[in-house]
Amino acid sequence: MTKVEMLQQITAMWNQVPFNNLLGIYITKFDHQEAEIRFNWQDKLVGNHVQNILHGGVTATALDFAGGVVAAANIIERLGDEIDLAKLQSSLSKLGTIDLRTDYLRPGRGQEFITTARIIRSGSKVAVARMEMHNEQGEHLAFGTGTYMVG
Amino acid sequence: MTKVEMLQQITAMWNQVPFNNLLGIYITKFDHQEAEIRFNWQDKLVGNHVQNILHGGVTATALDFAGGVVAAANIIERLGDEIDLAKLQSSLSKLGTIDLRTDYLRPGRGQEFITTARIIRSGSKVAVARMEMHNEQGEHLAFGTGTYMVG
Amino acid sequence: MTKVEMLQQITAMWNQVPFNNLLGIYITKFDHQEAEIRFNWQDKLVGNHVQNILHGGVTATALDFAGGVVAAANIIERLGDEIDLAKLQSSLSKLGTIDLRTDYLRPGRGQEFITTARIIRSGSKVAVARMEMHNEQGEHLAFGTGTYMVG
Amino acid sequence: MTKVEMLQQITAMWNQVPFNNLLGIYITKFDHQEAEIRFNWQDKLVGNHVQNILHGGVTATALDFAGGVVAAANIIERLGDEIDLAKLQSSLSKLGTIDLRTDYLRPGRGQEFITTARIIRSGSKVAVARMEMHNEQGEHLAFGTGTYMVG
Repeated sequence: MTKVEMLQQITAMWNQVPFNNLLGIYITKFDHQEAEIRFNWQDKLVGNHVQNILHGGVTATALDFAGGVVAAANIIERLGDEIDLAKLQSSLSKLGTIDLRTDYLRPGRGQEFITTARIIRSGSKVAVARMEMHNEQGEHLAFGTGTYMVG
Repeated sequence: MTKVEMLQQITAMWNQVPFNNLLGIYITKFDHQEAEIRFNWQDKLVGNHVQNILHGGVTATALDFAGGVVAAANIIERLGDEIDLAKLQSSLSKLGTIDLRTDYLRPGRGQEFITTARIIRSGSKVAVARMEMHNEQGEHLAFGTGTYMVG
Repeated sequence: MTKVEMLQQITAMWNQVPFNNLLGIYITKFDHQEAEIRFNWQDKLVGNHVQNILHGGVTATALDFAGGVVAAANIIERLGDEIDLAKLQSSLSKLGTIDLRTDYLRPGRGQEFITTARIIRSGSKVAVARMEMHNEQGEHLAFGTGTYMVG
Repeated sequence: MTKVEMLQQITAMWNQVPFNNLLGIYITKFDHQEAEIRFNWQDKLVGNHVQNILHGGVTATALDFAGGVVAAANIIERLGDEIDLAKLQSSLSKLGTIDLRTDYLRPGRGQEFITTARIIRSGSKVAVARMEMHNEQGEHLAFGTGTYMVG
């Protein structure tokens, strides 16, 4: 299996993770330099009836997932070219969020929400990622910083 | 309307917020000294197929909500005894999360998840709360710290 | 007094704050869009004998101060053109850090340390700033995020 | 060398770290369950002339150091009884702060400042600690959460 095929397989698998599926979040870019995930507005994601805005937990979910995707892409990048699926799954099973900071900048309004993530500290044991969430009009809704166990 | 009746009405309203409802999260204690919320395990809340554990976003949602509840209880406490529903709703409409830090301590396993929150900094404009999530066996799964706009 | 003269006066005052003075930290840019502060390597700032690197507290000090400067510049910007020193000092007296997150990216080595700050959330009560610290060779040493009371 | 003698030697060494020395911070309890450090008020630690309170960076320094001490005590505890100084120093050289969150609760006023730290997540690679700073009158001034590389 080539690396590209592996990334496609992981993408398909992660898009089917129950809670990502429930929220309609899916990966649109899976690269060790930048990851991107997206989801559309759905009424069930509302956290405030009166203001009709996203629940803060939806935003945190998107930030955490985007950071996890770019951390995974970095794990894969480190494995080099000679990887098989077993080795990959073993490496990915160590991936976990240690801590996550979410900064809410503007109320969560929009039709589509785009979250990007980049690695700011890369190591064999721990990686730190920074995330940003915008809506389809380019309004900046949230910042995030996540520390991930990667090895 | 008495203060107790008001708290009951807000509790009912917040339990019906779409995203809380989707996750099955509900308020079990609504007090300015301590708030508590609970939810049960559901397969749709899984964030990791292989390990069969909660999505980190579910944990963040619970922590953020619990902190918001205790912050709201503090807003109500400050209003004193002579409050009416209009004044209350006006005050609560200003409530919003500024930032949230989540520390994941153990994998999210269990049948029921109990999240408590306490205010550690109280002000007329900003409140800071600390949260803890345990499962039904008392295992400590996560810590949280949230900064909330309250006025 | 013109706004420029006021900024110069505040800069002089803040550079003489005892702890800034002790560390040799001084303001090099005081603008509502970006603030910058600098300090030079001194042996007394070492936090680790063996590795000969900055104490993590020095880095946190620089990040907190840079965020405070840009938050102050935003307070001043909001006051408009008709400000006097008394009104300004009254406004600045409300400035305070609510919370600060520091992400350490690389060991604190270098001859000069440059910390910049930008506002990511601006409000009449609370402002949130993001900070970055580099050394004179452009190596990125730390990220910071600070939430400040501004009104 | 017994473990107690080793702890004494590390304590003496860390109290002489230049920046700890400059601030007058010293270890008063070095245990894997709880660490404690203390420092006295000094005019040079002031961060705000007008209010005459500690610089936020002093508080962050104390929280970071206390967390580092309890993380070190956990590294030593894991080494078991058969340790020599070379092995210990090799282990401690890996210790480093990954990220630190400081929550400022009250203005930094007092004559003596006591900071305690406890481990909330313990692992062979990463440890997370929670810290609290009080003054000599028991007023709670700050909370902290730090993530440390320990292996």
